[in-house]
Amino acid sequence: MLTLSLIGIGCGDPEHLTLAAVRAINAADLVLIPRKGDVKSDLAELRRTICAQVLRNDRTRIAEFVIPVREAYQEDYRKGVDEWHDALAATWSQEIAQHLGSEGRVALLIWGDPSLYDSSLRIARRLDPSPAIEVVPGITSIQALCAAHSLPLNDVGEPFLVTTGRRLCEGGWPHGTNTVVVMLDGGAAFQSLDPAGLHIWWGAYLGMREEITMSGALAEVGPIIVAARQRARGRHGWIMDSYILKRRS
Amino acid sequence: MLTLSLIGIGCGDPEHLTLAAVRAINAADLVLIPRKGDVKSDLAELRRTICAQVLRNDRTRIAEFVIPVREAYQEDYRKGVDEWHDALAATWSQEIAQHLGSEGRVALLIWGDPSLYDSSLRIARRLDPSPAIEVVPGITSIQALCAAHSLPLNDVGEPFLVTTGRRLCEGGWPHGTNTVVVMLDGGAAFQSLDPAGLHIWWGAYLGMREEITMSGALAEVGPIIVAARQRARGRHGWIMDSYILKRRS
Ligand SMILES: C[S@@+](CC[C@H](N)C(=O)[O-])C[C@H]1O[C@@H](n2cnc3c(N)ncnc32)[C@H](O)[C@@H]1O
Ligand SMILES: C[S@@+](CC[C@H](N)C(=O)[O-])C[C@H]1O[C@@H](n2cnc3c(N)ncnc32)[C@H](O)[C@@H]1O
Repeated sequence: MLTLSLIGIGCGDPEHLTLAAVRAINAADLVLIPRKGDVKSDLAELRRTICAQVLRNDRTRIAEFVIPVREAYQEDYRKGVDEWHDALAATWSQEIAQHLGSEGRVALLIWGDPSLYDSSLRIARRLDPSPAIEVVPGITSIQALCAAHSLPLNDVGEPFLVTTGRRLCEGGWPHGTNTVVVMLDGGAAFQSLDPAGLHIWWGAYLGMREEITMSGALAEVGPIIVAARQRARGRHGWIMDSYILKRRS
Repeated sequence: MLTLSLIGIGCGDPEHLTLAAVRAINAADLVLIPRKGDVKSDLAELRRTICAQVLRNDRTRIAEFVIPVREAYQEDYRKGVDEWHDALAATWSQEIAQHLGSEGRVALLIWGDPSLYDSSLRIARRLDPSPAIEVVPGITSIQALCAAHSLPLNDVGEPFLVTTGRRLCEGGWPHGTNTVVVMLDGGAAFQSLDPAGLHIWWGAYLGMREEITMSGALAEVGPIIVAARQRARGRHGWIMDSYILKRRS
């Protein structure tokens, strides 16, 4: 029997790791580390660092593999995602078969928490043979962002929406909430909103050496964030950022 | 100078603790543990267990204190909350002055993550003298719920709303999203919704020995959850539960 353990590792700081994650990594026979080529290689690097720091089990093997390239553009978005997940599942199955066979514990170290804007659970369900699936929860970038700003996420008794940059651009300020968390935003989507009455708490490379945070009235700090974002992306070759917007009611 | 460290400890499983939380607990001169009287004393118990398991610093003192009782009913809800936070801030200040004085590091172990439906940050800002505030992010009950069900929280590229039982009752299914997380629900608020087309993933005492999870079509499992909830609350004297609702689009 095969068990696949999807282990949340937090989002940049090796100390985001939970004691349960440390235990799960050490319980694995095989840790698979995905690599994207050269860009974002810092992300594979964090996984290597984590293994080096917490792995105490001699029998745990580590195997790196290259993630299949995603078709840049597909007319049918949903179909494109499905096909990419199929391709990833095939790669995982192949790596597992090659390094472990059909029995044992495989671990994947998942950025942040495995349930939040992450496809691992969807890919895991496509594996053949189909493994038992275990999830170890992790610190999300939302928690890291709030911690960096000492910010309560929700107002007392109030809801909040978590959404993507694309959705914010398309739909404007969402109905029925004064707090919005924005992730997966390639282009500072907050620029599409009327900034009047809005505050922003922004963070990039949270938990990492490169961490940058800024906050204030959107009208004032919005343009400063856009510029800082561009500079940082230029310097590092990549950026991961998220932000919280609040509307004063 | 005084530093107050609000440390997320996860929501029931001592292994939810992060390496950063372990470090922050050991860096504290004083750990304050709130107690509520007899009910929910399991929650103070978890904090004691955590200290016993991870504290290696002889100079860290632990002090328990009793949380002031909250006025059961106030006509002005917002004012009631404000007064309660004032009372809590006064208690914290008093405990800090008594056990530590005006210099050093105080730690509070916060259930889940300090930013999520938690008042510690709001109370901390009322402290006099005003300390430097540090937040260590923690595993939220949302992450624990998803992990227990191996459930991806959001659909691909889609938003989700996090709200309270009260809001769900008052407002019905929220506009603009097919995924809703419900917390702080004293009375199984999902019963106020038309269950057609809705699925639920429910969990109580997540991460604890008493953990219960159920999922399925709301029309079918809704009544079973209501009954299980009542039995569990009767047996333990208290319950903490959360759930995710998804509407098939
Ligand atoms: C594919 S999602 C993965 C989210 C992850 N599973 C989590 O729990 O945070 C990637 C998005 O998460 C956010 N993110 C992840 N790590 C981050 C970090 N260290 N700093 C800022 N944002 C981050 C960004 O919005 C990014 O576009
Ligand atoms: C005052 S809020 C605190 C939330 C906490 N800060 C967090 O990050 O999860 C309490 C609510 O959290 C949820 N909750 C906390 N711990 C839980 C657990 N172990 N199992 C299920 N729900 C939990 C319940 O909805 C409960 O009403």
